Amino acid sequence: MIAPLQIRVGAGDVDFSGFVHHAAHLRFMERARTELLRELGLEQRALAETEGILLVVRAMRIDIPGLARLDEELEVKTTVAGLGAATLELEQKIFRGREPIVDARATVAVVCNGRPRRLPVELRETFERVAGEWAAKT
Amino acid sequence: MIAPLQIRVGAGDVDFSGFVHHAAHLRFMERARTELLRELGLEQRALAETEGILLVVRAMRIDIPGLARLDEELEVKTTVAGLGAATLELEQKIFRGREPIVDARATVAVVCNGRPRRLPVELRETFERVAGEWAAKT
Amino acid sequence: MIAPLQIRVGAGDVDFSGFVHHAAHLRFMERARTELLRELGLEQRALAETEGILLVVRAMRIDIPGLARLDEELEVKTTVAGLGAATLELEQKIFRGREPIVDARATVAVVCNGRPRRLPVELRETFERVAGEWAAKT
Amino acid sequence: MIAPLQIRVGAGDVDFSGFVHHAAHLRFMERARTELLRELGLEQRALAETEGILLVVRAMRIDIPGLARLDEELEVKTTVAGLGAATLELEQKIFRGREPIVDARATVAVVCNGRPRRLPVELRETFERVAGEWAAKT
Repeated sequence: MIAPLQIRVGAGDVDFSGFVHHAAHLRFMERARTELLRELGLEQRALAETEGILLVVRAMRIDIPGLARLDEELEVKTTVAGLGAATLELEQKIFRGREPIVDARATVAVVCNGRPRRLPVELRETFERVAGEWAAKT
Repeated sequence: MIAPLQIRVGAGDVDFSGFVHHAAHLRFMERARTELLRELGLEQRALAETEGILLVVRAMRIDIPGLARLDEELEVKTTVAGLGAATLELEQKIFRGREPIVDARATVAVVCNGRPRRLPVELRETFERVAGEWAAKT
Repeated sequence: MIAPLQIRVGAGDVDFSGFVHHAAHLRFMERARTELLRELGLEQRALAETEGILLVVRAMRIDIPGLARLDEELEVKTTVAGLGAATLELEQKIFRGREPIVDARATVAVVCNGRPRRLPVELRETFERVAGEWAAKT
Repeated sequence: MIAPLQIRVGAGDVDFSGFVHHAAHLRFMERARTELLRELGLEQRALAETEGILLVVRAMRIDIPGLARLDEELEVKTTVAGLGAATLELEQKIFRGREPIVDARATVAVVCNGRPRRLPVELRETFERVAGEWAAKT
């Protein structure tokens, strides 16, 4: 399974309120997606150069029940929640210890020359395998 | 009614894909919320200093049907979509001309000493008035 | 002359300290550079598509003598300070009223296929003309 | 000695040019400073709450000789370069393998109630010790 990503909250992640800014949580989740792809052997630059495809966030739903603060250590957990014809659904949760801070879902679309494209077979198989392994463990 | 905010896409708003990064759209929408509050005569720092309350984004749903690019001019339109006991619902849309690029909804919560608090009467009345005026026009 | 850019400080521009985060000042200055280029009739995307050249920040020096806060209105003033063979020097200052908040200098390099390239004649002439006009006024 | 920080370049760190945006390098360096403080047993939130002091970036000089790209692994090395009465000088370098990508110097100031303040004795001693240990090794 993919290792959760550890995050340390820095001064620029915290806004006027003294709590982590919502956009900082998005950066944390993007770091986790980058790591996820890399651990699966999928590099975005290689996908762009060899297949001409790009991955873009097409939709996001984010709930922030917890308020995180400077210097705290957070953990981002990312799982593949579903596969569409041209999209990948990821579930991303951020925790402080066992306490939920963020509960999010990202829809990542495959784009080619500015238009949606079907998921390449290689990506589909990789994500189906991963989703299956994760489901088997829980 | 609140004037829509004009945005010019800069180099740092565009990511590897050549299109506006989803987090840049969040920055654009935050700028529009800041302008909205200011035009309503509500300044966040004054609210913090006089009432001890902070406004934080508690949830967000964002759909990005369009792909915007460097140098394009976008327009962010923000309306008050609803009022909860301790939250304010904003609808935010980003357009390129008449073409929809982003369709989002932000839930802004009132927080005091790290805990949710009811909307102060002054804020509630201001937003109810605005929502009523907008509804009357459409 | 190029109009100074007005900035309103938003919640996400302010960090844990309660003051504008240094990286937010960089975003403000980038917005001002984008406006400068546009007012000079130079669009970065067009330069990339027609000439194959990109403008990247190659160096920056930033001093932040002032502490700016949420909701304050700032003004970014940008001037062409010099032209190298492959670089453009910009001076950027941020003010709150007449009080200096930021004093910065950015070196923007012209890059083509990942390598430095001489400034195209059209860019050089535009910036020389602008620098001359500005000098004549002061 | 303080461990260098490993960074993986994500999609949002790369701008229109296809290379890491200068502001992303600043985020990487901030993450390294946060780690440095933590490894030295200094937490910014604790400093704020117990001593009433804040650390803010007061000046920065950044040179970006190298162009880094998506998915690349970078390493940020941070050393204490000097101590002023009210400031801390840090040298920060980013490498891709042995190749220098960024060479920067950050001046971090101690601020209390919006005004400069002398470095507290505890901070001064910690940084002097660290600077001495590092010097002894090279």
